[in-house]
Amino acid sequence: MRAVIRRGGKLVLDEMAEPVPVQGQVLVRTLACGICGSDLHALHHAPRMAALARKSGNVFTMDPDRDVVFGHEFCAEVLDYGPETQQRMKTGARVVSVPNLIGPKGIETVGYSNAYPGGYAERMVLSEMLLLPVPNGLSTEHAALTEPFAVGAHAVASAALVKGETLPLVIGCGPVGLAVIAALKARGFGPIVAADYSPMRRRLAETYGADEMIDPAEASPHMTWQRQGLPSSLRDWRILTAGGTRLKRPIIFECVGVPGVLQGLMEAAPPTAQIVVVGVCMETDKIEPYLGITKELELKFVLGYSREEFAATLDDIAQGRIDAGPIITGKVGLEDVATAFEDLGKPEKHAKIVVEPGR
Amino acid sequence: MRAVIRRGGKLVLDEMAEPVPVQGQVLVRTLACGICGSDLHALHHAPRMAALARKSGNVFTMDPDRDVVFGHEFCAEVLDYGPETQQRMKTGARVVSVPNLIGPKGIETVGYSNAYPGGYAERMVLSEMLLLPVPNGLSTEHAALTEPFAVGAHAVASAALVKGETLPLVIGCGPVGLAVIAALKARGFGPIVAADYSPMRRRLAETYGADEMIDPAEASPHMTWQRQGLPSSLRDWRILTAGGTRLKRPIIFECVGVPGVLQGLMEAAPPTAQIVVVGVCMETDKIEPYLGITKELELKFVLGYSREEFAATLDDIAQGRIDAGPIITGKVGLEDVATAFEDLGKPEKHAKIVVEPGR
Repeated sequence: MRAVIRRGGKLVLDEMAEPVPVQGQVLVRTLACGICGSDLHALHHAPRMAALARKSGNVFTMDPDRDVVFGHEFCAEVLDYGPETQQRMKTGARVVSVPNLIGPKGIETVGYSNAYPGGYAERMVLSEMLLLPVPNGLSTEHAALTEPFAVGAHAVASAALVKGETLPLVIGCGPVGLAVIAALKARGFGPIVAADYSPMRRRLAETYGADEMIDPAEASPHMTWQRQGLPSSLRDWRILTAGGTRLKRPIIFECVGVPGVLQGLMEAAPPTAQIVVVGVCMETDKIEPYLGITKELELKFVLGYSREEFAATLDDIAQGRIDAGPIITGKVGLEDVATAFEDLGKPEKHAKIVVEPGR
Repeated sequence: MRAVIRRGGKLVLDEMAEPVPVQGQVLVRTLACGICGSDLHALHHAPRMAALARKSGNVFTMDPDRDVVFGHEFCAEVLDYGPETQQRMKTGARVVSVPNLIGPKGIETVGYSNAYPGGYAERMVLSEMLLLPVPNGLSTEHAALTEPFAVGAHAVASAALVKGETLPLVIGCGPVGLAVIAALKARGFGPIVAADYSPMRRRLAETYGADEMIDPAEASPHMTWQRQGLPSSLRDWRILTAGGTRLKRPIIFECVGVPGVLQGLMEAAPPTAQIVVVGVCMETDKIEPYLGITKELELKFVLGYSREEFAATLDDIAQGRIDAGPIITGKVGLEDVATAFEDLGKPEKHAKIVVEPGR
């Protein structure tokens, strides 16, 4: 079958062996698969990713020196069942799944595995027990984006949000930031302030429900705190709240993931703010802990989602609480995946590109 | 009056003008004042402290080029009242206070102010409205240590501790770590694991209620997690808990405050751990956010305490829930404060030295 393979730090379109479903697995045809920022990072920095993953006890076992087929935001069609399967879904049924695969050697991450192809291949194997049927009427490309929107759902569920008592600010409106905005909106948290240098991304932020869009080149996103009357020192915060003044707690979603952003947020954040770190920074970063201490900041790092959150996000999209459509700025076949990776580096041109291997 | 003055980066014993209580202030005689690690830091790094404090919106306005009298862990005796005071306590009454002073120019921090002397002086002025009477029978030197023990009380109150569901680990058993252990014990959280390279500090940790003391030169404090059966990867954590296994959440109190400790904890911590940052690191520090992300760690920075926590700690000490005695490893008069600062650098010799200006 045809697949886009990471080989020697480059993406090549090549033929590869058909995957064969073993015990508990299902053979599927890949219908659509979103390109994730992590894929872009893994293309160039896979060795560092693998080393960091080992350091963090992660069972993320991709060997960057061997072939890998990326793609973990997929919607697929059931083609055939392997041995010892329940076969509850008919052949031809459309499915999504969290990108985990239970194999004979343990759990693999679909899209970051040397043993199994991800969604930039014509066919994949998936674990039957993890499959979720795509509801009738939900488009394939929207269903495929359950995964990135689930990341936003998990970040919002992990944050210390309380309706009417917290002020959400989203820093960075790429796919991760937009997913956070969509989840905030779906759960009724607001008003939502969103910041990004890109006009296109600010427009998307508005589409997804942000109430105020800020261009950091024009104004500090943190001026919003001053308008809300939040004090800049912890001592003033304590004096005001001890005196009975109710202050809203700022909840800042860091959806950029490059070095220096955390320190910038720690400098700008009001006292007691929670910084939810959703953007995945793979570099060593510098912070001044004293800023965190003297403002009693909280850094809450989050990753991925639970299976329940993934299923709930599919339902959010199917029921129209989240519109997966506007984030999609392009569709390509396998032959154009390498070009799409380059295009995604331009924030004015693209947010999410969906690969259709059968295109 | 006599006072130990920070002047030109050194401590000198000199005569200085008597403080005069203005509106709402009280003149007191300093009976006892503990030496804090922050004082040691401020002696040598006051310019950096002042710069960082300004950056963090802190109203910590000490000018390091002018004279400062340190000392914010004090017990004092009421000598005289300034104008517009209630005079509820008799002359001769013993008092403690949070180290804030309300003056004509706003709030000053007692012990880090150019305008008012701290506790390494024979006399001070304090704000009447912040005074708390020392209960009968409570020794002066124990009452003076309300302040450092309140730091532990606040850290414990800020942590995500749940009885029977969390595993507290205290890294560093200097005065801050011991105060955390004492507060954990007073509130019934445990079993408490405590780690320090110093045998004397480990003995003190045991005295204050630690259930297990670890020498990091001999064994990793994190081996305790393995014994508890905690998984090392977030994925395994999610699989186990989704399957109904109840896992205890590790709560790690960072009570060291030097660069590198945070990163070491982020490397060693099990998934979902909360790291409560109590130690005050004044340097720029390096972390790998990816470790935080892939383990969903939480960094909770804390500082100081509220007035309520301070008052509750005085009660803890007065009622015997916390014994302030064992931490005191020395007492000096004003003439020996400079030597005491040097001695406190040796963890085998001292934990807390109390200054008695009238000695």
